[in-house]
Amino acid sequence: MDKIIKLGFLGCGNVGGGVWKLLSGFAKDIDHRTGLKFEVKRALVRDLTKKRDIDFPAGVLTDNVEDLLGDPEISIVLEFLGGEKPACDWIKEALRRGKTVVTANKVAFALHWPELQKAAEESGAGLYYEAAVCGAIPIIHTLEASLQSNAISYIYGIVNGTTNYILTRMSREGAEYSAVLADAQRLGLAEPDPSSDVEGLDAAYKLSILASLAFHGRVPFEHVYVEGITSIQAEDILCGQELGYTLKLLAIAKRDGLKVETRVHPTFIPDKHPLASVSDAFNAVFLKGHACDEMMFMGRGAGDLPTASAIVSDLLRAAAAEKHAYPTFNNDPHPAIPYENNTDWQTAFYVRMLAVDKPGVLSHVAQTFACFGVSIAVMQQKGAMSDGRVTLVFITHKANEKAMRQALATIDPSFATVESVLRVEE
Amino acid sequence: MDKIIKLGFLGCGNVGGGVWKLLSGFAKDIDHRTGLKFEVKRALVRDLTKKRDIDFPAGVLTDNVEDLLGDPEISIVLEFLGGEKPACDWIKEALRRGKTVVTANKVAFALHWPELQKAAEESGAGLYYEAAVCGAIPIIHTLEASLQSNAISYIYGIVNGTTNYILTRMSREGAEYSAVLADAQRLGLAEPDPSSDVEGLDAAYKLSILASLAFHGRVPFEHVYVEGITSIQAEDILCGQELGYTLKLLAIAKRDGLKVETRVHPTFIPDKHPLASVSDAFNAVFLKGHACDEMMFMGRGAGDLPTASAIVSDLLRAAAAEKHAYPTFNNDPHPAIPYENNTDWQTAFYVRMLAVDKPGVLSHVAQTFACFGVSIAVMQQKGAMSDGRVTLVFITHKANEKAMRQALATIDPSFATVESVLRVEE
Repeated sequence: MDKIIKLGFLGCGNVGGGVWKLLSGFAKDIDHRTGLKFEVKRALVRDLTKKRDIDFPAGVLTDNVEDLLGDPEISIVLEFLGGEKPACDWIKEALRRGKTVVTANKVAFALHWPELQKAAEESGAGLYYEAAVCGAIPIIHTLEASLQSNAISYIYGIVNGTTNYILTRMSREGAEYSAVLADAQRLGLAEPDPSSDVEGLDAAYKLSILASLAFHGRVPFEHVYVEGITSIQAEDILCGQELGYTLKLLAIAKRDGLKVETRVHPTFIPDKHPLASVSDAFNAVFLKGHACDEMMFMGRGAGDLPTASAIVSDLLRAAAAEKHAYPTFNNDPHPAIPYENNTDWQTAFYVRMLAVDKPGVLSHVAQTFACFGVSIAVMQQKGAMSDGRVTLVFITHKANEKAMRQALATIDPSFATVESVLRVEE
Repeated sequence: MDKIIKLGFLGCGNVGGGVWKLLSGFAKDIDHRTGLKFEVKRALVRDLTKKRDIDFPAGVLTDNVEDLLGDPEISIVLEFLGGEKPACDWIKEALRRGKTVVTANKVAFALHWPELQKAAEESGAGLYYEAAVCGAIPIIHTLEASLQSNAISYIYGIVNGTTNYILTRMSREGAEYSAVLADAQRLGLAEPDPSSDVEGLDAAYKLSILASLAFHGRVPFEHVYVEGITSIQAEDILCGQELGYTLKLLAIAKRDGLKVETRVHPTFIPDKHPLASVSDAFNAVFLKGHACDEMMFMGRGAGDLPTASAIVSDLLRAAAAEKHAYPTFNNDPHPAIPYENNTDWQTAFYVRMLAVDKPGVLSHVAQTFACFGVSIAVMQQKGAMSDGRVTLVFITHKANEKAMRQALATIDPSFATVESVLRVEE
């Protein structure tokens, strides 16, 4: 006989609606393939009177969380509220009561993963979070179940669709940031308050989760260096394009022995790099393992059905599991291996300056760079401004972040002003 | 206490050696994360006296398959022999005796999957085959465990590294096929007898496996249309490049209702397509599901360690499983849903002709195309040959395969000869 599994939805907005649609539209196939039937018994919403796309059966909607958490028939809770409060407390409470939780909540994992996992392990409930990172891309399960025998040395991720959409359009159209952002907001591709996306926080949450799984060691969110795209100028994108580079907001995690670096910032990558062709709102994760070598996973990072694809895959695995698995970390709870947060990483740089057009200027800049161990790979001088100054564009070889900052602070502003500094990864 | 799992290797060449290295080098991490220890108890080889890289403990190597299959301590058999015989019989025998099998054997799956799965289901043994398709890329497990709630409408795969390497170099260097093939053989990137790769058979084996899993219906290998790269000319790659296209050997599977089409052939794709940047020996699978939308998975399709990465991931999942899962197919064993093999697919075409340079020729060609419902998207006339003939290059809109063939057969050879026909997918 078929097994009927009763579900509780915490929230039922865009993503919850997508899961509802996917579960009901695909119910016959799921039953045929797995012998599982799902029934959404309760769905928590804020406003019971609100008009909704979905025609919920009577008695499903509730505005009292205890109707879900206190119902012993509900064995799996799907959480779509997002954010830290009250979602985290409810996830934890559900786990404590032995209910398996499937969630899309990156903030909960970036900030409270150890507590959540502890609650799950104590009660034996499952904790599934594929949808928390990169929507439909099964990068969490791939790291856990397909790349487990790899020592992963780096991850480059395009993990935020809004910023990728904005940078793609700035690159295609030569448009400025504020104009494209306004258009993206009009099209519903950026939030009315876009700060978490455009300032890189959303990407940093996801990076801390990915890096923790990839390196089998907890990488705290607070260790992630974050720089967003709000001050990117069309001119820099164009200068990069002329040199064969595409600008992306990259989430970068590298591990070298016990040193781990994690950073989110706008980054030039060569046009030929597979990540350069990941455009519009798509997400992608490019990584290297000691056995698998380089790999890339690309797909939709957001949207109701793509996110539902990840959530339902978690749900099916959760429902079929005889016993739930939990990741292990080398530095948690007993830090046998103390990872070090490396903040003086090595990277190449793109620098654009406005320089006085007279003898000795270029030599001053080149000497300053050399003093700090920064070596120049490419230099371009461009046409003069109305005030007679010229634009100088440099791409450096790899240099230490701190040395580069010192070098730039040492450039004499009466010779040249530093207009933009961006990092470059090959 | 740790669980020690005893393994038998069928074969111990390149891939088997990679698995041995990965298992021994990563043993501590695997143990820490999973509590599992593996011991290779027996490895079947043809020649016991051959010098080997690996220093096998005494008593491991054997040339008698019964030493593995008959050993009740060996619970998991890893098969690296490849090919149909004797590998298939041994896999089946191992499964019958209740031993779980992890294999990289695409031929076994393309030709004998139903029997193998039947043997596994009857004894309850596990059957794992991630490494059979696209090496390190976890596309099998992703289709089974992460995209299960998707109706997949198409797959485009670059699933053969040798041909992708050859086409990449032909594209970069403008070199002819035979010269690049010879160089690839010299570098060990093509087999001394390259026919299975360059004639598209290897890709067809893999496509039948991928399509079966993606469409949840068995797609027999015999249904796959196959065309290799042996007659590709540098001139056509160049003509395509001028029009913004990259040539790849694509494995294509599409499903529309109950109609399924599967074909392997050289294909022009737009330079901007994510598959176009998958170069050298890399593999990739690009697919679309009704929920997840478009996704791409890229990685190493061959090599000892990349293949070992897939095999060891299977091994770890097999060893941890309380109960093994098997895919279900809508048309097997009782064809509730009869899939139809569609051989008159729709695709765009690239056609290069040599035409007499006189009035009426272009009109003859255009009229012939129109008669068969083929509409022209792009036409280019190029400089004259020494005999006065001119090169005409066409890209058509989508047309039916059969209509296109009839149209080309109807072109009057005293006006124009058809030099090359290639398919184009957007």
